[in-house]
Formats: sequence, structure tokens, C-alpha cells
Amino acid sequence: MTLLTAGILIIGDEVLSGRTQDTNSNFIAKNLTSSGIKLEEIKIIQDQKNHIISSVKLFSEKYSYVFTTGGIGPTHDDITSQSIAEAFNKKYEINKEAYKILEKYYTDGEFNESRKRMTKMPSDVQLIYNPITAAPGFILNNVYVLPGVPKIMEVMFINILKNLKKGKPKKIITINTNLYESKLAPFLDDIQKKYKDCSIGSYPYFNFLSKTGGVNIAISSWTMDSLDDVKKEIIEMIKFNGGNYSLV
Amino acid sequence: MTLLTAGILIIGDEVLSGRTQDTNSNFIAKNLTSSGIKLEEIKIIQDQKNHIISSVKLFSEKYSYVFTTGGIGPTHDDITSQSIAEAFNKKYEINKEAYKILEKYYTDGEFNESRKRMTKMPSDVQLIYNPITAAPGFILNNVYVLPGVPKIMEVMFINILKNLKKGKPKKIITINTNLYESKLAPFLDDIQKKYKDCSIGSYPYFNFLSKTGGVNIAISSWTMDSLDDVKKEIIEMIKFNGGNYSLV
Repeated sequence: MTLLTAGILIIGDEVLSGRTQDTNSNFIAKNLTSSGIKLEEIKIIQDQKNHIISSVKLFSEKYSYVFTTGGIGPTHDDITSQSIAEAFNKKYEINKEAYKILEKYYTDGEFNESRKRMTKMPSDVQLIYNPITAAPGFILNNVYVLPGVPKIMEVMFINILKNLKKGKPKKIITINTNLYESKLAPFLDDIQKKYKDCSIGSYPYFNFLSKTGGVNIAISSWTMDSLDDVKKEIIEMIKFNGGNYSLV
Repeated sequence: MTLLTAGILIIGDEVLSGRTQDTNSNFIAKNLTSSGIKLEEIKIIQDQKNHIISSVKLFSEKYSYVFTTGGIGPTHDDITSQSIAEAFNKKYEINKEAYKILEKYYTDGEFNESRKRMTKMPSDVQLIYNPITAAPGFILNNVYVLPGVPKIMEVMFINILKNLKKGKPKKIITINTNLYESKLAPFLDDIQKKYKDCSIGSYPYFNFLSKTGGVNIAISSWTMDSLDDVKKEIIEMIKFNGGNYSLV
């Protein structure tokens, strides 16, 4: 079985200016990992047509799935849909199904030009329904186009995730210890060399106030049937070095 | 004056797996924006040498400044320093100054092989001092190499920011309103067309529980002397449409 991969494109000047802390990519990342889809890259880019086009094309070629968030609202700076139409040489036109949805959702007179703009999409897309504010996202080839507002994006993502082909979930075990990372390093290096099909990461943290810290050791694998042997060996090593451990 | 630009590379499997929510890029983004440096791209990549090398080279050519976080610790999965050495055809060797710093910081016997590894860097770098856990980052050409632990990264970043060439800070005014984005859209579009040297962004938000929302309208410009006229026009427009507004 080939590994399913993904890339995320976050589209929005507001993230690059620091105005907004992106949380969409973390939400998608967690769900992909537990669905056996390996997220290989996240890119945060400006609301600029040429950037969107080149990034979408590249990601679409490189990864099994591409998820974009942002830039599909009703205003002049929302240019994701037309950029994606250009990226795939599709017409950018009113999607009849999306038009019907919004026509029904808005009462008389509320369905103005800006809202109609949200129904313009590349031709030949499949809609992603939006149970909160009605305006749909869409799927074109392997690209899933979602809005930027987290609460809406999250509901829509969970819905599309149901229909995605999934892989074997990545196995992960995390062990916390009070030993320093540099103390652990040579031992972890040896254990890593012995178990080449898993990845052993060490993530130190530091409490600024108490000036104390520790390390989370994460063992992960997309292919191994069990991580128990690696886990056992790491715990023995921590004990041997006089450290405490707990499973996270 | 040419605009100063920047790119951020976040290096770390733990962000891509969703284990860690990246906050480093938002911290750096905010500080760059207020320092008149335009952040154009953020990329989050795996702990893989070829990815790091190609991304660092590309960013170094494209942007005035490049900031990397992550992958300079003592363990086997910390490969940022050697990757950057390769990217710029430099030797990867013990940095004598860094060696002295860590030798002094650690008491006898504590300065083990793994900690010594943290003093291996590309040749010809300038150190970025670390007032918390001693192990320095470094500067090579226009690339600033920082650790991944947020509290340590932040202190080190603030120190290097003092010495960076700065631009005219980006002017930003944010106006909140209870009107819908789609109501505002055609008016904002007109105002945007009139003031081409600023960028008018609209950021809707939605409260899932109360099913209410609003829009933050952000006017920003790297070049205009004042945003007051644009602000006035947007406020008049909100009032005209029967909306409430407040400055954020």
C-alpha cells in the first residue's frame, strides 16, 4: 500500500501580518494523522493570484490530497476560487447547485451581488456543503477548498474526511521524562539505529518561571505493527540513567 | 526605499503531525509587521535534509530575511545546522565560541557528546546568544537560525530584532461592525478601488453557540502617510447601511 500524503495551503494576509494565529492547519493535521494520511507540508501564503496558482499546482502534483483554507468569501480580496480555476484551466462561473443553495438560504433581497459571487467557482467541481452559513466549498481533482473561519472550516472538514480514502493510522507513543535531552541523546540515537521503521523524536520543553523542564519522547511509525519493544527499551534506558518517566 | 521582506521556515515533524500547535511564526510575524518588515511566506516542513536545504536556499534568494525555528537541539533528529551548512557550501564544524560558552555553562562531566553536538555549525557564522539554556543559534548570510522551544526562541528573536534593519511600520486600523460581510462587500470594493495604496481586508467571525457574528475590517498600508480618510469613508458607509461600528 502506498502512503497517502497531504499538503495544506493557508491563504491569508491576516496570518502573515500576525493579526490571526492560524489554528486551521493544526486541526487538519491532527485529523489527517489519525486517519493514516501523512501531512508533509504546510504553506501560508498571501492573497495573491500567482502565489495561489503556483502553490496549488505544485501541491496537487506532489501530494495525494491538498487542503486550502481562506479566500472564498464575498469580498474583493477573496480570490481563491478564481485562482484555482486558472490553476486547472477551468472556467470560473456560477455553480448552479451552489446558486440554488444560497438562493434558498437568503430571504428576498438578501441574495445580493456579493453573495452571488460566492457561488462562482471553477467548472466541474463537487460541492462541500456548509451546514452553518450555507456558502459551500468545493473539490476539484485532489484539491479541497475550504473557508478560513475555523468553526465553519472544522465542520466542513470533518464531513469531507468521512469520504477520504484513509491509510493505516500512524502509531504514536509519547513518554515524558525529567532527564535532559542531551543526556538522552546518545541513547536515543542508538535505539533509533536499531528500529529504523519508526521515528523517535525528542521534544524538550522549558518552564520559564520555575526554570525546570523535561522532554517528551515520541515514538511514531506508519508501518510497524507494534511499538511496544521500542517503548520498553526507552523506559529501561530512562531508568538506567536515574530518570523518572510517565506515559503521556 | 525598497520594502524589506521575510520568510519563515518552521522545521519539525511534530507540527506536521498535529502534536504541536506552532506559535513561533505568529510571534515572529507580529514583530516583523510592527518593525516594517513584510512577511511574505511561512513554510512548515519535515525534519528532512533535502527539504531544509532547498527551502532555505529558495527563501534566502527571495527574501531580505529568513528565520528558521527548530532542529538545533542535541538529538539525532536535529539536522537544521548541518543542512544549512550544506545549503551554503560551508563546513559543518565545532564553533569555538559556542564551545566555550557551553563548556562554561555546564559543570564537569555534564558537557557530553550530545551537548558538544550543539556547538557544531556552519563555518563563518555569527552567534545568536541564548540567555536561558546557553546553546546559541546563529546567523549565516540573511538566514537567522533559532531553536524551536517558544520561550527560548522568543527571547533570542527579540534580541536579534534590535539589530535588524527596519522599514516604515505597516499602518493598520481595524474597524469592527455587526453588518454581514456580503452586505459590506460591494461598498468595500468601491473604497478599495479609490485607495489603491492600502489594502482593505474583511475578516468575518462567527460565534457557533450564539449563531451571531460580525466582521473586522482591516485597513493597512506600507506606504500611505495616513489612513484617516479611508477610515472615515468606511465608518460613513457602515452608518449609511444601518450598522454599528467600533474601533478594535
